[in-house]
Amino acid sequence: MPQLRKDPVVGRWVIIARARARRPGNFVDRSDHEQKETNKECPFCNIQQEGSDSVLSSGDIHIVSSEIYSSDRRKELRRKKKGLYNVIDGLGVHEIIIETPEHLTNMADLDVDQIQMIFETYSVRMRELEKNAQFRYVLAYKDYGPPAVGHRQEHTCSHVVATPVRPLRVKEKLIGAKKYFDDTRRCVYCDLVAQELQSGERIVHETQHFLAVTPFAARSLFEIWVLPKAHHCDFPEGIIGREQDLAEMMKVLLKKVQKGLDDPAYNFVIQTAPFARGNLGERKWESIERDYHWHIELMPRLTRVAGFEKGTGFYICAIPPENMAEYLREVEIDD
Amino acid sequence: MPQLRKDPVVGRWVIIARARARRPGNFVDRSDHEQKETNKECPFCNIQQEGSDSVLSSGDIHIVSSEIYSSDRRKELRRKKKGLYNVIDGLGVHEIIIETPEHLTNMADLDVDQIQMIFETYSVRMRELEKNAQFRYVLAYKDYGPPAVGHRQEHTCSHVVATPVRPLRVKEKLIGAKKYFDDTRRCVYCDLVAQELQSGERIVHETQHFLAVTPFAARSLFEIWVLPKAHHCDFPEGIIGREQDLAEMMKVLLKKVQKGLDDPAYNFVIQTAPFARGNLGERKWESIERDYHWHIELMPRLTRVAGFEKGTGFYICAIPPENMAEYLREVEIDD
Repeated sequence: MPQLRKDPVVGRWVIIARARARRPGNFVDRSDHEQKETNKECPFCNIQQEGSDSVLSSGDIHIVSSEIYSSDRRKELRRKKKGLYNVIDGLGVHEIIIETPEHLTNMADLDVDQIQMIFETYSVRMRELEKNAQFRYVLAYKDYGPPAVGHRQEHTCSHVVATPVRPLRVKEKLIGAKKYFDDTRRCVYCDLVAQELQSGERIVHETQHFLAVTPFAARSLFEIWVLPKAHHCDFPEGIIGREQDLAEMMKVLLKKVQKGLDDPAYNFVIQTAPFARGNLGERKWESIERDYHWHIELMPRLTRVAGFEKGTGFYICAIPPENMAEYLREVEIDD
Repeated sequence: MPQLRKDPVVGRWVIIARARARRPGNFVDRSDHEQKETNKECPFCNIQQEGSDSVLSSGDIHIVSSEIYSSDRRKELRRKKKGLYNVIDGLGVHEIIIETPEHLTNMADLDVDQIQMIFETYSVRMRELEKNAQFRYVLAYKDYGPPAVGHRQEHTCSHVVATPVRPLRVKEKLIGAKKYFDDTRRCVYCDLVAQELQSGERIVHETQHFLAVTPFAARSLFEIWVLPKAHHCDFPEGIIGREQDLAEMMKVLLKKVQKGLDDPAYNFVIQTAPFARGNLGERKWESIERDYHWHIELMPRLTRVAGFEKGTGFYICAIPPENMAEYLREVEIDD
């Protein structure tokens, strides 16, 4: 059974996958994330043709449960303590969203309405998983590697992971946003949107409801934040009525990244507020709806992350974000 | 001039390098960290032969200042605020420690006394940089990429970076350690050493003064922490009298990693307490000497870091740390 383990110093949770019966020589598998399926039939194309009972379908989008990290969702998650160490046996749920029946690899190549359906699917699954009182957070993310570099699954897909804990980076943002509100009586992200709109120098693209910028303190080359102009802490509620506008924004950004940066690997993560905001039992989370502002982080992966960056949280960005934004603004895409 | 920029939400500092006059088409340089020097003469071999005035030397070890990230160290660092955003113009100091005159690539291939001299050099440089009242932290780290994969500098070297800010991951550890002390009146790392010695299942190697373990909540495959058995918050003071023992530990670990994991890329970072502990002006840091316990994080780089891990601080580790430790214990190295 997979486990969640908590770092005893900083409180960072790590998913420890179930031990696979590997021989020592097989421990090191550099190609773990690099396998290509070109010589086999694509399992995601097949899943959709078979119409298996284990597959949830919504139009052209199909959802399968990943067996590696999911535990039985009807079972109680067991929390244990062993000396210093905290463990949760069982992880939660990991769903793979198969974005299209076609064997396409990059979300950038989907139509705007397909992208809209995918984001609506995230929203539906997040609301569904929120009903399970064991879960405290849900991550929706995409992890794309171009065919040339190789990727575990070439068929374009996203992930929804529900967990019984709140990830550390999410907590940091909640704490930072609360501190800013306490100091100023304003939302830090609303202020950020206003300041970025005024200066304009880091804007990559703007739609009616969203603003895409390279962050002032970007961690990596061509990092992009997609910020809703309207204040809302929660992604599924916040996008209501703005689904198409968001899909148009994502289409433009993904195309600019694909075309301007030579089809790089990229990830995006939807940064939404945790579940059960009214009932967390911790006073400091009471004000999440007021303090926090959902957004999306989109990160092309052009350079490797050095160990000292992982170890210290101190990043080096080789190009000023203003220059990145200027470059991306000028990338022309076909409509 | 390079800048330090602070993320307005979480307080993470990022080094923004000076804008290089690149044309848009040259922005994306996948080989930034992948250049090999095989066809040119190695600049680090040459630097040592020339005996330039800009090079500090200590026996076989030579130290050069990197021009990319260093600012003039005699100048005052200027702190600025622009709306939401905090900036420091100028970065501090980045020194490159050229570890040996021989053109070797992996520290694992150096002798124990050479490794000892390198760690002593970190210590000397850290103490020297501490004298500059503008600096609040010093990072000493190594970033190794094997020749087969390619690396910017093949000649084995380490880095010492002095900064006017405390990195976020360092602050997290200080806060976590303080919280643990407040709750238990004990050092969390001392307790961790005791618990790991008792269970034994995550021990990779043990010397008289140090314990190397795979952490209970490892972030990545074969992550290793080197923990001093004796409590001390500060690396330069903490290693006094234990220099040779630490060098022996590092030699064994680096050899096990090199041999057992097929010469992977790796990094290590010395996690020491910040400078100016008695005079930080912030009450919460007063107890650093009591709460914190210096250590080293060694991270082989076998799989890429996915974007959602960077975005959420939620890591997935595919092998239980107990199995990693068992595997590394069994890797036989020649003495």
